[in-house]
Amino acid sequence: MSTSTALTVPTRFVEVDNSRFAYRRWGKPGGFPLVFMNYFTGNLDDWDPMVTDGFAADFDVILFNNAGVGSSGGETPGTVSEMTRDALAFCDALGLKEFNVVGFSLGGMIAQQLALDQPNRVKRILLLGTGPRGGEGMTFTELSADERADPDQFLLGAFFSPTGASQAAGRAYLKRLAARTRDRDRPVSTRTAEAQLHAIREWGAVPPSDRYATLQKIKHPTLVVHGIKDIVVQPINAFTLAEHLPNAQLIMYPDSSHGAQYQHAELFLKHATLFLSA
Amino acid sequence: MSTSTALTVPTRFVEVDNSRFAYRRWGKPGGFPLVFMNYFTGNLDDWDPMVTDGFAADFDVILFNNAGVGSSGGETPGTVSEMTRDALAFCDALGLKEFNVVGFSLGGMIAQQLALDQPNRVKRILLLGTGPRGGEGMTFTELSADERADPDQFLLGAFFSPTGASQAAGRAYLKRLAARTRDRDRPVSTRTAEAQLHAIREWGAVPPSDRYATLQKIKHPTLVVHGIKDIVVQPINAFTLAEHLPNAQLIMYPDSSHGAQYQHAELFLKHATLFLSA
Repeated sequence: MSTSTALTVPTRFVEVDNSRFAYRRWGKPGGFPLVFMNYFTGNLDDWDPMVTDGFAADFDVILFNNAGVGSSGGETPGTVSEMTRDALAFCDALGLKEFNVVGFSLGGMIAQQLALDQPNRVKRILLLGTGPRGGEGMTFTELSADERADPDQFLLGAFFSPTGASQAAGRAYLKRLAARTRDRDRPVSTRTAEAQLHAIREWGAVPPSDRYATLQKIKHPTLVVHGIKDIVVQPINAFTLAEHLPNAQLIMYPDSSHGAQYQHAELFLKHATLFLSA
Repeated sequence: MSTSTALTVPTRFVEVDNSRFAYRRWGKPGGFPLVFMNYFTGNLDDWDPMVTDGFAADFDVILFNNAGVGSSGGETPGTVSEMTRDALAFCDALGLKEFNVVGFSLGGMIAQQLALDQPNRVKRILLLGTGPRGGEGMTFTELSADERADPDQFLLGAFFSPTGASQAAGRAYLKRLAARTRDRDRPVSTRTAEAQLHAIREWGAVPPSDRYATLQKIKHPTLVVHGIKDIVVQPINAFTLAEHLPNAQLIMYPDSSHGAQYQHAELFLKHATLFLSA
């Protein structure tokens, strides 16, 4: 076992084309790489240490900021397909030939595109709180001034349901996120957030025909995980993914919103490990 | 461990009101009771031995035929609520004070009604390939002469998807069902099948208002399992159950129809055991 944990692993940088990507890598030595792609405005500090350390027991865990995000250099492009190109450049720079992908929300859109663009390099896919291209109600609005003013309150409202149990899980999650005190990441800039929002909206535009046809081409074993009360990405999108992907398992957790995998972290880790080790 | 298995456990009978229920009971001595309720025309031999023996490692497994089904005496009533009354009479006769329920298809409807009628006796619920009262497209037609003529072919068509992998899993399932050679159950009569069909249709009738309101009252931890290509009970019904039940986990398996839990028996057992032991 590596002695690093989510709280202690140093942020490192890899150079690509006069720019650099920030990443953190730890876990089982010689383990199969598991590359994590984060949500709108999420940076390296926004992965739940309980979840990433859980995966690190079995896998070579790699968190990274895509171009322009947090402490990564470069510009954040305005489409998922360009973000996918950048994510691949990062994987190339690390010399990752084959890997599994965990994509959460926007990261799940990139994971789908990556599987389409490089079907042989991606082995297994975990799609968390995300939707297909042209999914239902995926026309996100900008964060309001209120939402930007209090990020913790925003996360409690968007990632957790209004019940006492879910809100308590949310506060525990926020505490876990805050536990890393040194070498924290830089916040995501407004400029990057705007480009990400553009990319999500472009992904969410309903095509004039064959709405979900491309999903048939993603033949990878896929695990779709969603909160049954997700107010950010409607739960029906997870159902649609499972319906149209040829080899997808669907798991939905009760009383949970966009952060379902953090609210139910222990069970999620067991489910994900069963899936990844199949 | 008891030395019985699904293949060797004798069929027993318990008397209730001048009639008798047929059942098979084996598993972990002192284990928590897990009562199985079967599908339209299913009898004691139609539970997959791989699945029931898997549960028997941890639970007191109880398969039974409801009134009028297979080798049970009595008349099969024409509504789910009357079937639920009969199922309770059976549980009372065995002296089961508290138990978990596994309900498959029609059995899942009875399981829901049981949880509504006796909330304190049912602890955890597994709903397999079933739907809520007033669900989507739950207006089943009678089996055709062709379907009745070749039950194996009917099961391969209804319980498994058309892919090679699913059909192969179907043939393995049929082989497992046939492995018990002695003390087999009696087939379900046409009269019972007609009453069951009537009950399913009554359950499936869409109410004029508050379509899924009763689901809110089933607060039990529930695991909903469904095949994403179920052609018997549309998959959206499983999604609806998870959406409206306050404490339900949803798991859907790829490339599978009404027999999803048998096609993916090994994984299903792991998922169900995680759920039941939580």
